[in-house]
Parts: sequence; structure tokens; C-alpha cells
Amino acid sequence: MRILIVGGVAAGAGAATKARRVNEDAEIVLFEKGGYVSFANCGLPYYIGGVIEDRDELLLVEPELFRDRFNIDVRLHCEVTDVDPAGRTITVHTPIGEVKEPYDKLILATGGRPVVLPIPGKDKEGVYNVFTVPDADKIVARLGEGVRSAVVVGGGFIGLETAENLRARGLEVTVVDKLPQVMSNMDPEFSDVLIGELNRLGIGVITGAGVSEITGGDKVDGVVLEDGRKLPADLVILSAGVRGSTELPEKAGCRLGESGGVWVDGNMRTSVPDIYAAGDIVESVNLVSGKKVRNALAGCANKQGRVAGANAAGGNMLFRGVLGTSILKVGELTAARTGLDAREAKEAGRDYECLYIPGFSHATYYPDATPLILKLTVEKQTGLLLGAQGIGRNGVDKRIDVLATAIAGHMTVFDLENLDLAYTPPFASAKDPVVLCGMIAANMVRGEIDYCLPQDLPALLADPGTVVLDVRTQGEWDAGHVEGAVLLPVDELRQRYAELDPEKEYAVYCGVGYRAYVACLLLKAKGYRVKNVSGGWKAIKMAV
Amino acid sequence: MRILIVGGVAAGAGAATKARRVNEDAEIVLFEKGGYVSFANCGLPYYIGGVIEDRDELLLVEPELFRDRFNIDVRLHCEVTDVDPAGRTITVHTPIGEVKEPYDKLILATGGRPVVLPIPGKDKEGVYNVFTVPDADKIVARLGEGVRSAVVVGGGFIGLETAENLRARGLEVTVVDKLPQVMSNMDPEFSDVLIGELNRLGIGVITGAGVSEITGGDKVDGVVLEDGRKLPADLVILSAGVRGSTELPEKAGCRLGESGGVWVDGNMRTSVPDIYAAGDIVESVNLVSGKKVRNALAGCANKQGRVAGANAAGGNMLFRGVLGTSILKVGELTAARTGLDAREAKEAGRDYECLYIPGFSHATYYPDATPLILKLTVEKQTGLLLGAQGIGRNGVDKRIDVLATAIAGHMTVFDLENLDLAYTPPFASAKDPVVLCGMIAANMVRGEIDYCLPQDLPALLADPGTVVLDVRTQGEWDAGHVEGAVLLPVDELRQRYAELDPEKEYAVYCGVGYRAYVACLLLKAKGYRVKNVSGGWKAIKMAV
Repeated sequence: MRILIVGGVAAGAGAATKARRVNEDAEIVLFEKGGYVSFANCGLPYYIGGVIEDRDELLLVEPELFRDRFNIDVRLHCEVTDVDPAGRTITVHTPIGEVKEPYDKLILATGGRPVVLPIPGKDKEGVYNVFTVPDADKIVARLGEGVRSAVVVGGGFIGLETAENLRARGLEVTVVDKLPQVMSNMDPEFSDVLIGELNRLGIGVITGAGVSEITGGDKVDGVVLEDGRKLPADLVILSAGVRGSTELPEKAGCRLGESGGVWVDGNMRTSVPDIYAAGDIVESVNLVSGKKVRNALAGCANKQGRVAGANAAGGNMLFRGVLGTSILKVGELTAARTGLDAREAKEAGRDYECLYIPGFSHATYYPDATPLILKLTVEKQTGLLLGAQGIGRNGVDKRIDVLATAIAGHMTVFDLENLDLAYTPPFASAKDPVVLCGMIAANMVRGEIDYCLPQDLPALLADPGTVVLDVRTQGEWDAGHVEGAVLLPVDELRQRYAELDPEKEYAVYCGVGYRAYVACLLLKAKGYRVKNVSGGWKAIKMAV
Repeated sequence: MRILIVGGVAAGAGAATKARRVNEDAEIVLFEKGGYVSFANCGLPYYIGGVIEDRDELLLVEPELFRDRFNIDVRLHCEVTDVDPAGRTITVHTPIGEVKEPYDKLILATGGRPVVLPIPGKDKEGVYNVFTVPDADKIVARLGEGVRSAVVVGGGFIGLETAENLRARGLEVTVVDKLPQVMSNMDPEFSDVLIGELNRLGIGVITGAGVSEITGGDKVDGVVLEDGRKLPADLVILSAGVRGSTELPEKAGCRLGESGGVWVDGNMRTSVPDIYAAGDIVESVNLVSGKKVRNALAGCANKQGRVAGANAAGGNMLFRGVLGTSILKVGELTAARTGLDAREAKEAGRDYECLYIPGFSHATYYPDATPLILKLTVEKQTGLLLGAQGIGRNGVDKRIDVLATAIAGHMTVFDLENLDLAYTPPFASAKDPVVLCGMIAANMVRGEIDYCLPQDLPALLADPGTVVLDVRTQGEWDAGHVEGAVLLPVDELRQRYAELDPEKEYAVYCGVGYRAYVACLLLKAKGYRVKNVSGGWKAIKMAV
């Protein structure tokens, strides 16, 4: 059996080694158009910033290892240009000419490529992607030449990570995004927090503004925005995302799915016999919405490659799908998400509610606890956990991973409130933020009280039938409050509730939501109509 | 309705406030025999060490808050001495005499008390528990008097945390445990790693040695071990664990369960009508084994108190049970566990296998990645995850919480290998250690190769039919290897396997298990009988 693999980064390299482990006798050849196999593309921004000092750290595996350990023939600088599924051959551009190679099984793992923005001037010297090791080499070389300023076009993972790393090298950096927010795979309020952190690092951020031109002679000297603003730049980074390259699968006759990615079944088989596909080029099912999505992330590519390699070699493995889990570190903040955010839940037609749950990385009575805020997407009737987002300085990665696991296990908020998580003051609170998520959301699903979101406040304030009630202390109120709200501290509420007009409805907020919850229950027992402003002042500050 | 609550720490305080939230009209009275409600007992060792500087940080809630916010009548220094379930009254020793108090619903949350070791001299000055704020006050006062040395009797959570904190205060500290290991709720090999870390901190550890006498005049001056050894000590900490105090529930006629804790149903109702119980005094079901266990931990007490309070006040909530999740920080190490360890899986009669999975806190190409090692307990036939233990410098808390969530969701190792966890180099690897757990364990359950444990090596080395094969490099071998093993690097194996005697069985190890896995598959394909020594040299060093 002859197994050919096209592409040698995450999915391709994983497919090749798994195929060997499943089948000692197969002939396995891997074609990579670049000069490296299995490199750490997620590390490139950090190499640019000098956080990863040694370039060799990025090169995970040497080609010799594929040969010696796995008896895999790795052919670098070999671009596969065509597939003949009837004749079961591929056409390969090699450094010494074009050859045809026969296959029994073919695995396509050609990966993505940076989305090319049709901006005049994009080919000038000093305009780079952050996609390959040579890209990073070029940027590092430019840094050595004393560049002073950079514009990063695109505020996704790679854009923001690269912006931070260029700033760490001392450059004046501005991030520009055509969309009204950065990190468009999270709800917009998280973007505002991230922009605040970027600004704190000294990085400018301009959203809602596309780049109309990249200026300069041979070398770039700036960008012009669609609104006419000009930004000087010795360096322009284009990071408008990565798209799977489906040309080759299409030439092979592989059907594309509804998302535009290559359609595959759970075994990573394409629609063409004996052709498998994995990584950025394929579409995956979102396990919550059931929707087909393109999820160009390394963890996913690794798993898919392993499954494709096993099955091509005669095994029987399944790739189930994705939750769209992702995470970003910027400055001291971490932002992460899994499952469905509010927009996706709406698109998926789910009857959902969102809740904010502020908490801390660990017990506040132990030093260095830092605040975090989680946002849950919960199915209203069942309490099924649909998604979660979070931001904070520490411990966000842990909570999102726990919540991703809970979603994968089809768990409800009632399961969350019962979770037995590890508690010791340096790592958690007795009620971990995730358990708190469960408790609060379960209270909501059980119908104890209604919730509204901070985003609803402007409408509620404008509504003469509604009073926005602040139940914090006078001191907290003085330090900042919702304009137009009324103060009545929770600890005086039992004595003073009769001051409130029973004809009105009350949107109650406190610091994080707990005192408002207590107040709502008290007022509800007294016959008032109430709702809790989810996440309290912390969420209000973030979201409004 | 009149709800009385006995005990005001985690379970009692939580029960009281939840009862109020569920029922605005009930009269709620909380009796606490000590002088504090809702204090942070898990923080006591850190207060002793000065890590928590402000004593007030330990006092989570003031009694006034119970009154003002919750209309709960908190009575401090009131010990409940008897219950008359027929007359629905309790007897209370108050500072001004004994009174009887009627109840409609009674919640017993009297908590635990330190296990009293019957050691002569235990009442001398300078011998303390670490259980209450006054205990901590006494120890801190002694530290101010210039004590030089301490013996900590008991190597559980509180013992080790206190030992570390006393050491941080400059004392000579020795931990003594009657059992052959510290942290007896984990498999023994973890104990050895912890002892190594304690030694690194300058803390002596003596296991397998009980204390026969505490010596000195009025003031303690040392301890005598059962084997006759004498240890000088200005301070002796007794931390032989905490046991729920079941005297009062027994007086009330509450049935004790098979574990010796108070029997309760899922609503936290005892066997006596209108009496609920929660916290350290009750037994809980272990959700994996189905066994009734006593789980005297804060997270559990909080959840149980909430359920008991809700139900006593007319609500309907369920406490499902525990996984026995726990975590310890000592020095730079974290050790944690969830579900069933090897001994518990055996006791529970499960057909299980254990696997070691070494990994790193995050991508090794990003700075400061630190090693960790996980040990899984997996049901052999189904791949159901039964338990997990882990140790390392960073990221152990996250992985154990994820695995605890997976166990709660009845997930199998096939679910784990498909988990979509958050990956970015500063926080994880593209194949997170938890996903790696799934992949490796799934390979095992699918029957790809057999595994053995490092603990099997002595027997395997003694067996003339077995060869222990090291497939690492010459350099790794030179730096340390299993005495009696044979070296054949994996990258030469395909050329040289014929040197191996096909009549023998091969126990193959490498650094962490991956190269041995590759080697095993190769050898198996060539007709050899093989097994992979789980976790490789890392696990061998830890376990043998």
C-alpha cells in the first residue's frame, strides 16, 4: 500500500506518523511545498517578539526523524499541483522537475493560507504575513534594520499577538480592523476590554476602518484608511485570517461542504474514494449547533490528521467535531471562548439566555487573586450549556477548558453546580467560578428570578415603568454607578423596601450579581416585579 | 416556619443564607459554638506562614451581615447539646445559661473536629491543632516567642501546608506520619515526589512512624517516635485529619451510614423527620464507585449546605455526590486527584488499568513550560474514565479540574481524545496533556498495544523470558537508565530489530512513552510480543 500525504505541518505530519503506527508495511511519502515539516506556526508571533529566542524551537521535527523513526519519505520543496483520482496519481512540482506519483490512499492536508486583502501596495517591501518561518525571518530581519512603526491589519489572534510582540520590540504599533471589534469570534464587549489592554501596552487600535492603500516607494511608508486617515508605518503586517486552500481538493473532485471547506465524513474521508483530508482545508461539525464550520486551529488539525492517517492506513478512527474553543493572551489578559457565543446561539435558533459571572482566579483571601468574568450561553428551558466566554488575568484558560469539557459531555447547568472541582486557596475558591456559573444559571433555569443584561440598561432606563435599582453601598455608588439608577443598599432593603413603588418593575444591580440576587428574592417575596442585571457593576462597566 | 441551624462555618452559613433566599418569611436562627461564622479554615496554614498577612482576611463574613442582609439571627458561643426530635426542640448552652429552642426544621452542620491522637503529653503548652482561628492565633503567638523547631504529626493537606508555612517562618520542621506515605489519598509514588519537594524546602519527613509520646514539662520540648527516635520540638502540630462530629446527630436519633457519617438522602434529609444535615458530619456517595464516603472538604460542605438550606426552607434541590477531588500545593509542586485512584478502583472491584502520561504545562517551545505527570485510572473494557491523579509545578489544577468534569460527565477516554480544549503556546500544547491522556488510553482500550507499569519492572527484570528494552538515545541512557535493561534506540530499530530474540517478550520504555509506543507497534508488526512501560523514564524515576 502506498500512502501519499500532501502537506507537512500539523495535520499532514500527524497523519503521516499515525499512518505508520497503524501500518508498518505501507510506503508513506509526504510532500511539503515549503522547507519545513511540522513547525510551530502558533509560536511565530513570539519568535518575532523575542519571547521565543531560539528559532530552532519553532522547528518541531527534523525530516531525518521522519525517515529514521517512521520510515516516512519526506520531500520538501515539492508542491503537488494536480490529482488524478481515476488514475490514482498526483502531479508534483519538485526542484528537479515535474513528476507523477501513484497512490493507493491520498491524504490532503495542504492547510490554509493567509487571506489576501486586495489592497493596493500590498506587495511592497515591508509588508508581511505572519504565517511561515520565512515570514517571521523577514520581519525579524527588518527589526534589525531599525524600523520604528508598524500597522497590523486585522485584529484576530495572530494580529493581536504580533502587535503585542512588535510593541515589546519597541515599535509604535497600531492595529486596524475593518470590523467594529477585535477578536470577532467573541461577543463585542470582550473586544472593548482587549482594546483597553492593548492601549495600556501602548498599542493603538482602530476598529471599523479598512485599509484602502499601502503607501511608499519600493518600501512601505504607511497606510491610508478608508476614511482617509493616514498612518505612518515602516512595517505592515497583514493578518486578516487564514483560509483553507481548497484548490487541490477541488481539482481532485472533492465536494466542498456548505461552509466552503472540503466535505469529509467522521473518518475524514472526502467524497472521492481513497482521498482523505484534514486540517484547515476541511469543514467540521460544530458539536453544539450542528452547523458545518471551518475551524483553522492547530489542536483540531492535529486530531484530524491523526484520524485521517489511521484510517488511510487501514484503521478505524473517528473525528467527532469541534466546539470552536480558542484562547488569546494579550498583555496581562487572557480571553477565551468555547461553544456558542450569543450571536451563534441566535443564528442556531436556540432559545438561549446569556449570563455574566464575575469571579476570581482563586480565593480572594489568598494573595494575588485576580478578577475574571465569564459569560455563559445557556439553553433556557433545559439548562443545557451552549457556550462560554471569559476574560481576566489568570485562570481563564482553566475555566474555559472545564466548560469546554462540560459542553462536550452535554452537561447542563445543574451538572455544573454539582461539579467537584479541586479547591485550595492558591488555585480556586470553595465555590469555583465554574460552579458559581452553575449555581447562578441553575437559579435562572429553575425560575427563581429573571435576569436582564447590562446591554438592556439603556432601554430600561428609558422605560418609565422600570426603575434601575443599585443595592450596593453608598461608598460603591460614589465610586461609580449607573446614571439614572436609584440607590438602596441591600442591607437596608428589608427595612426600607416599602419606599419602592410596587407599580414599577425593578432592574436590580450590585457589584457582581449576588447582592442583587438576594435583593431580588426579597423584593419578589414582597410582591415586586424584579430582574437581576447579570454580572452587576463589573459586567456593566465591561458591556455598556 | 422556624428553621434552626447548628454550626456556622461552610455548610451552616451556606444553609442559613440559602434558606433565607428561598423563604423570606421563615425565622432563621444559627447557633455557633465558637466566636466566628463562616471563616476561611483552608487559609489557616497560610495565615500562620504570613502568606495571608491580615487576620481579618480569614473572617469571611461578619455576624451583622447575617442580620442586616439576611435577617438571620446568629448566636455565637452557643453550643447545642441535645435534640428532642419528638418535641422538636434543641437544648442550647448559651453564655447566659441553658435554653430550649423550638424548631420546625433543623439543619445540623456541626462540622468536624481534629482527630485526637491518644498520645501522652498532647495537652502540653505548645501542642496545637490547625483547625480554628484561635488555634492559628496561638501558633502565631508562639512564633513571636522565638520558637525554633516544630514537629508536624500527620502528612495530609493541613499537615503539609502547615509544615511549609512554619518552615517559611524559619523553623526547623519535621513531618511525621504513621502511614508509609504522606498524602495517603493519592497513590504512593506521588508521596515520594512530595517528600522530595519537602526535603528541598528543608523539611524533614519521617513516614511509617507513629508518635508515642510528647515530652517536656508544662511546655513541649520534643516528641518520641514509636521506634524510640527523639525529635526536639518547641512546637508540635497535630494534624491527623478531621472527623465529622456525629454526637449531636446521634443524640437526635439520626441514623449513621455505612461510612460512619450521618446518612442523608439526596435532599440532605437525615433519617429523622425535619432534620437535615450537611458538611463534614454526613456521608456522601462517591459518584464513580457508588460507595458511601466521608469527604470533609470545603467545596462539598458549601454545596451540601446550600441544598440543605433550600430544602429545609421549602425548596427542592439535590446534592448528587462527590468525586473526592482534592489538591495540595507544597513548595513549587501541586498534587491533585479526582475520582478513583488505583487502590479505590481495586476496592470497587473495577476492571481497571492505570496509565502514566507525562506532559508539560504548556507548549515546550514557549518559555517556562514545566513538566507534569498525570496518572489515569481507566476501565479496561469500556474506556470509562474512573480517576486521575497529577503532580507538577504548573497546570496540574487545570488538568485535574478538566478530568473531574469529564468523570462527572461519564466520559470515556474516547471522549477525552476528542476534547476541544483551548490552545495557545503560553497555556497549553496543541495536544494538551488531557487530550494526550485520551489518545494514549484510547490506544490501550482499542488494544493497539499492551501496557505495564514501572512498578512491574522489578518482576519483569527478574523474568528470564522478558527483556526490558530502552529505546532512547545513547545520551539519555548514559544519563540514567534501568539497570538490567538493553539499549536499542528507536531510530535504529527498523534496521536492527532482528538482533532481538523473537522468543522473548519485550517491556519497552523511552522518555515519556511515545517512542516506546512507536517501537512497540513496529516490533508487534514484526511478530514480537511487546508491552509499553507506561510513562517511560519519567514515570520510572517517580514510581520505582
